[in-house]
Parts: sequence; C-alpha cells; structure tokens
Amino acid sequence: MKRIAILATNGFEEIELTSPQKALLDQGWKAEVVSPQKDTIKSWDHTDWGTTFKVDKPLSQANAKDYDALLLPGGVISPDALRIDEDALIFIRDFFKQHKPVGAICHGPWSLINAGVVDGRTMTSYKSIRKDLENAGALWVDREVVVDEALVTSRNPDDLPAFNKKLVEEIKEGKHTLQQA
Amino acid sequence: MKRIAILATNGFEEIELTSPQKALLDQGWKAEVVSPQKDTIKSWDHTDWGTTFKVDKPLSQANAKDYDALLLPGGVISPDALRIDEDALIFIRDFFKQHKPVGAICHGPWSLINAGVVDGRTMTSYKSIRKDLENAGALWVDREVVVDEALVTSRNPDDLPAFNKKLVEEIKEGKHTLQQA
Repeated sequence: MKRIAILATNGFEEIELTSPQKALLDQGWKAEVVSPQKDTIKSWDHTDWGTTFKVDKPLSQANAKDYDALLLPGGVISPDALRIDEDALIFIRDFFKQHKPVGAICHGPWSLINAGVVDGRTMTSYKSIRKDLENAGALWVDREVVVDEALVTSRNPDDLPAFNKKLVEEIKEGKHTLQQA
Repeated sequence: MKRIAILATNGFEEIELTSPQKALLDQGWKAEVVSPQKDTIKSWDHTDWGTTFKVDKPLSQANAKDYDALLLPGGVISPDALRIDEDALIFIRDFFKQHKPVGAICHGPWSLINAGVVDGRTMTSYKSIRKDLENAGALWVDREVVVDEALVTSRNPDDLPAFNKKLVEEIKEGKHTLQQA
C-alpha cells in the first residue's frame, strides 16, 4: 500500500487537495495532510476562506522516507508561505533526492523554485507563476497535465481529472532515477 | 502639483495603499487609485478581506503620461492578478520608459518581473518573492527601503515610514534618466 504526503498550510485551494486526495484514497492508499501547522489548517475556496482541515502529521515529525510520493496543492496563500519555510523546502527536496513522484498544481509548483528542483524540468502551472518558473530554468508548457520523469504538474482546478489520473499512474510506477535534486 | 497613480486590484494590502497615499496627499499632491476593476476594489487586511475602495480611474482609461509617479501596493492576491494583466504591464512599463519614480512594497515588486524591468536593479521585497526577483536579474538586499534611480522598494508594512519618506523624496526629484524599460 502506497502512502502519500500532501504538504499544505493555511490558504491552500480546497478542491486541489480534496480531489487528488480522493483519487489516491480510491486506490486504497493513504494520503496524509502534512503541515507546518500542528493541528488544523484552513482552506481557500475560490474567492474566500473555506473550511478547517485536520493536519494528520505536523511537518516537524514528518520524514520523506515514510512516504512514496508528495502532492503540493495550489492556492496563492499556502505556497507563498511554504516557499519561505526551510523545513518545508527540505521535506520537498528529499522527495526529489529519493527519486519519488511529486505532483504540483496551480501555484503549488512555486515552492519547487525555492527547493531548487525546477532547473531543466518540463512543467506547467497557474499562468501567474509561469515567468518565475521559466526564470528558474524550467521549460514551461501550456497543457492540462505535464509529466516529466515523475514530476506531474497542472494549471488549475479544471485540469484536476487529468492531473489525478497521471499522478496515480506515476505513483504506481514508483521511483524514477531522473527525478532528482 | 504632482499626480501619482496607485495601481491595485482586489486583494491589495490595505495599509500599503492607505499609508503611502496619505503621505502623498499630505504633500498636497493627487494620489489616484487605478485598477482593471471599473468601480470598486476590496482590500486585504492582514489575514482576511477588508473594506471596499473606490476606483478613481479605470485602467482602460488611464495613461502613464498623465502621472508623475506610480505606486504598487502589496498583498499576495492583487499582484498575482496584475502580473497577468497585459494592460497593467503596459501601464507599469510606461512609467519606466518615461523615467518616472516607481514605488513598490511587499509583493508589489512581483508585477515588475512580468513588466520586464527588474534586470540589473537593486531592490528589496517581501521575502517570499526574493528568489523570483533574483532569478529575473535583480540584486536583492534586505533593507527597510532601497532606492535605485527612482525605483523605491520595501519589504513589508513595518517599513512604511521609511518607504513613504523615500517615495516622496524621489517624486520631488522627478524624472531619473537611468529609470528605464
């Protein structure tokens, strides 16, 4: 049975956590919310704060070694906070070092810039951070889902069906040697 | 009398608009809110939506030629929207082409990346977008206010007193030939 970490903090886009999480759970896998916040985090629901979600594992107690893959939901507020959290960046980087699948959607890929893992990768994102990804060395393409050696990225909530499908596929395949930090 | 454009949309950090605006009005100058939204925009007040502000001039009717300087407030939501608005980027770039003072605070400098005007400039910002500015060619420094040839930048609301003082100084000095696009 696979175990997936979903790294998020206050202001993550709700559907970008719940929709992939359901797809992972439907496989019979575990999909745990990991956060710098210890107990709960509040979602963002399109244009305003949403509901409260339980944190399954505080980031301070989480280790990439215990997971098979990482999921980074979007929302503009959560990634903006994660990318300046050193523990979050170490956690993210460890998945790349361990060649494990990583899925990131919307503003989710933003943290990958600070984790230093986008140079030379083909990927997509929400359009507002396209320039930041390109300046960090990524080849940015405008497609509903982009898979590059276990790095799965999508643009926005409309892409979720394609994103979830490819994320599950990559996790089934397991480690990819060319996914690295 | 000087006339300053304040470019913002929904989700601008309220104090980063109202505090510099007051400093500009105290000089006896005009400081108009310009926005892609036609009538009103909603502020962000630290952790939640704030109050409604009147738009003085819709962006579609605004021209940099009619202003002596530009102010870009922060907040994570407003700059994220402005940087993918082509009209906003043209408006911003025109101030640089016309060698006019530009002030940007917090996430405000983010739009300057997409406007293509940060390469080679010394500046600061909210820490989360430091990497994006550096990758776009800026020399990023950690100071309460940085002035580089009529480009005035600061990190966060705590820096507002220093930011407002330098912004007023640069606007009094007028055009700087080395401020360019």
